[in-house]
Amino acid sequence: MDVDEARRRFATGRVARLATIRPDGTPHVVPVTFAVDGDTIYTAVDAKPKRTTRLLRVENLRARPRCTLLVDHYDDDWSRLWWVRADGCARVIDAPAPSHPGLAHLTDRYAPYTRTPPTGPLIVATVTRWTGWSAS
Amino acid sequence: MDVDEARRRFATGRVARLATIRPDGTPHVVPVTFAVDGDTIYTAVDAKPKRTTRLLRVENLRARPRCTLLVDHYDDDWSRLWWVRADGCARVIDAPAPSHPGLAHLTDRYAPYTRTPPTGPLIVATVTRWTGWSAS
Repeated sequence: MDVDEARRRFATGRVARLATIRPDGTPHVVPVTFAVDGDTIYTAVDAKPKRTTRLLRVENLRARPRCTLLVDHYDDDWSRLWWVRADGCARVIDAPAPSHPGLAHLTDRYAPYTRTPPTGPLIVATVTRWTGWSAS
Repeated sequence: MDVDEARRRFATGRVARLATIRPDGTPHVVPVTFAVDGDTIYTAVDAKPKRTTRLLRVENLRARPRCTLLVDHYDDDWSRLWWVRADGCARVIDAPAPSHPGLAHLTDRYAPYTRTPPTGPLIVATVTRWTGWSAS
């Protein structure tokens, strides 16, 4: 799968999985809503109830910005399987301006954000490698 | 979500995402088919076409056995979102006996394995922590 196709498929996903490294060096992974703009992936900390406002994914990225995001498609017909992984580097914007383009991209994709815009930190990942696999 | 409910929901997933650490210390994540037996998660390297038989997930786990697996449920109705993460430690069995219980668990869950049993390494993860989140 070439890079353009990988990027295109990734952007069709409704949920991605963000993998980061914990302070103790072990991997952490969490599902995230996201939006893609070229080689930039945006994901926000939103109003969905969380245990804490100090989220591990954010703290992990502050300490180790290298991350990876995965979108996959599962089907019991394994000839339809595919996945795309985006490796990159993320920065955390603690208090993004309401006019930040990342927030607009997210709101365009997810109706709940129209009613309740994300108010927490915005994660901006710059993708350095797109890797795609398809069974067919 | 308590541990029993987390384990139960995880086991309903058809695909999990396995996060490991690459040799350079960055995170890696890949979708995997899997089976759960108590606090053990099995996933195999099967006959689906891969770029190489020397898979990064396996090499990563040999060097750093700590891993995490995620099952999540996405719905555009965000009141239905949930996910479960299983943190643990994995070992790689390069040539599992055909009678290995892990292979039986996998074959029970996935029809394609009935026709073509997995022939590559078997990954056996012992879960030390189940973490679940549900929006509702």
